[in-house]
Amino acid sequence: MSLDSIYQPIKDDLVKIEQSLESIANVDTPLLSQLLEYLLKNGGKRIRPSLTLLAGKFHSYDLSLLIPMATAVELLHNATLVHDDIVDNAPTRRGKKSISQAWGEASALLLGDYLFARAGKLVASTRNLRVVKLFAQTLMTISSGELAQINVFFDRKRARDHYYKWIDAKTACLFSMATESGAVLSQSPEPVIEALIDYGHNFGMAFQIIDDVLDFTGQEDEMGKPVGSDLIEGAVTLPSIIFAESNPDGNLIKSIIENKDRDKVALVVDKIRNSPIIDECLAIASDFGAKACKALEKVPDNSARQSLIDLATYVIKRRK
Amino acid sequence: MSLDSIYQPIKDDLVKIEQSLESIANVDTPLLSQLLEYLLKNGGKRIRPSLTLLAGKFHSYDLSLLIPMATAVELLHNATLVHDDIVDNAPTRRGKKSISQAWGEASALLLGDYLFARAGKLVASTRNLRVVKLFAQTLMTISSGELAQINVFFDRKRARDHYYKWIDAKTACLFSMATESGAVLSQSPEPVIEALIDYGHNFGMAFQIIDDVLDFTGQEDEMGKPVGSDLIEGAVTLPSIIFAESNPDGNLIKSIIENKDRDKVALVVDKIRNSPIIDECLAIASDFGAKACKALEKVPDNSARQSLIDLATYVIKRRK
Repeated sequence: MSLDSIYQPIKDDLVKIEQSLESIANVDTPLLSQLLEYLLKNGGKRIRPSLTLLAGKFHSYDLSLLIPMATAVELLHNATLVHDDIVDNAPTRRGKKSISQAWGEASALLLGDYLFARAGKLVASTRNLRVVKLFAQTLMTISSGELAQINVFFDRKRARDHYYKWIDAKTACLFSMATESGAVLSQSPEPVIEALIDYGHNFGMAFQIIDDVLDFTGQEDEMGKPVGSDLIEGAVTLPSIIFAESNPDGNLIKSIIENKDRDKVALVVDKIRNSPIIDECLAIASDFGAKACKALEKVPDNSARQSLIDLATYVIKRRK
Repeated sequence: MSLDSIYQPIKDDLVKIEQSLESIANVDTPLLSQLLEYLLKNGGKRIRPSLTLLAGKFHSYDLSLLIPMATAVELLHNATLVHDDIVDNAPTRRGKKSISQAWGEASALLLGDYLFARAGKLVASTRNLRVVKLFAQTLMTISSGELAQINVFFDRKRARDHYYKWIDAKTACLFSMATESGAVLSQSPEPVIEALIDYGHNFGMAFQIIDDVLDFTGQEDEMGKPVGSDLIEGAVTLPSIIFAESNPDGNLIKSIIENKDRDKVALVVDKIRNSPIIDECLAIASDFGAKACKALEKVPDNSARQSLIDLATYVIKRRK
């Protein structure tokens, strides 16, 4: 199923999101305007703002609240990417130069700060204090989650738990904020809000696991970064963890991470690609996806609900 | 007059601000906790949160709103300093190693992000949407103001205007946010709020000009950084601008900034220190201070108003 057909119930409103993102780049400071345009006109999949809109479709669908909120969700996502690329020294993003690479770290840092604030102002414009607090809490979770990753030693026995906590903080919490805010701003009753939070969280976990699998199985030209990038940058994701669990004597992962033994990355990538580990990861992602869809049993049955179900399937089956 | 006596009307409440700042450092992530403690336990002058408390003293002084707000103001200030030190590659801050120097840029960047969010959450806890928007707008102004400084050429004729805009964005807007939020949260009538915004803005302009003068006239051991640091880092502040205006043929400033001619900095610092330029800058700062105090004629006469007047005098006469 294509994204276009999944987005059908919010098709016209996604155009408004693009217009809203374009208007964000319309500022007086020339450098800021240039950076915003480069960042926001990227033709991304816009999954997060779509989740906000779709989650708003179960009760009072009010675009005067949902458009600014969905825009803020996309801005927050982009701001964290820009700052991540500084932290990771990433040369590219979405197949083109990262902001920090093209304009330098200072510009990238200040752009991210500006976007946090710009997003915050949009959220405040909804006049809903619950989503304002949710927004602040989400950024706290993302930044403290990334800080918790700095200088962690690889501990095979605790790695899987640690990984789930990490991807919850770095990815899933933004997805659940996207759905929660849509549900709250459309005056959904609490059980529906809870169900959509549950959906967003599990959807986000599945999304990140697939991302981490694609880092091993994807094509370099489709992904816009080299295969095995995560390991090269020292990030131990689910495929590597399962590899370490099933090869307790090998300690290859530990040696790559702790001794920065980068020349062993290609070997590990090859071993993982040709093992049942990838299928195991896909099965785990599918489980999260199934949990996400199960949560939707508590929301009214309409075309938006079907889109949310289809989107979970799409995300798990995606190849880039 | 000492700060202690100026702070007399809010003495007990400043203890609560310190406790509130201490509680911010009480988090689960060990690295984050360590960073927060290092940053926030610095025995700073706490001028900004004091302004929020003092500005709250004219109508309904409600500590359940003013303590979180004043804490947020101090957190936002500290967050911008941490990010500034990354942008400027600053080795020290307040006489000790900067966060980016001691823990690296990635930690400093994420700490700043966390603090923006933590501050935002505190502001949201006041349940006052006007101050929530004000908070977001202030961070937008600060970050876009710093971005506007990147790669600017030195233009003698436009330098003074440019400087005033710059220090308004980087410094004065945070001071006026401090006073505005105190006034708003204590239910002040609009003319009192406007007067306190006016005070905060002019106070902030005076504060930054004195800061910039001290960069030329201060003692290295008192300032915690070398004399002439601004010029070394490429920042053209009021003393340099007046020097360039009064020596139109020299172009020494332009050459320092554009050719990174760092060995001429000592010469310029010496010339400025031994010229009437310093007195001219002090007179300009005093004018801003006088405007700040003049604005207070519109607020009720009480001990807090006297403290605000004394604080303006203190800030202009300070030597570090």
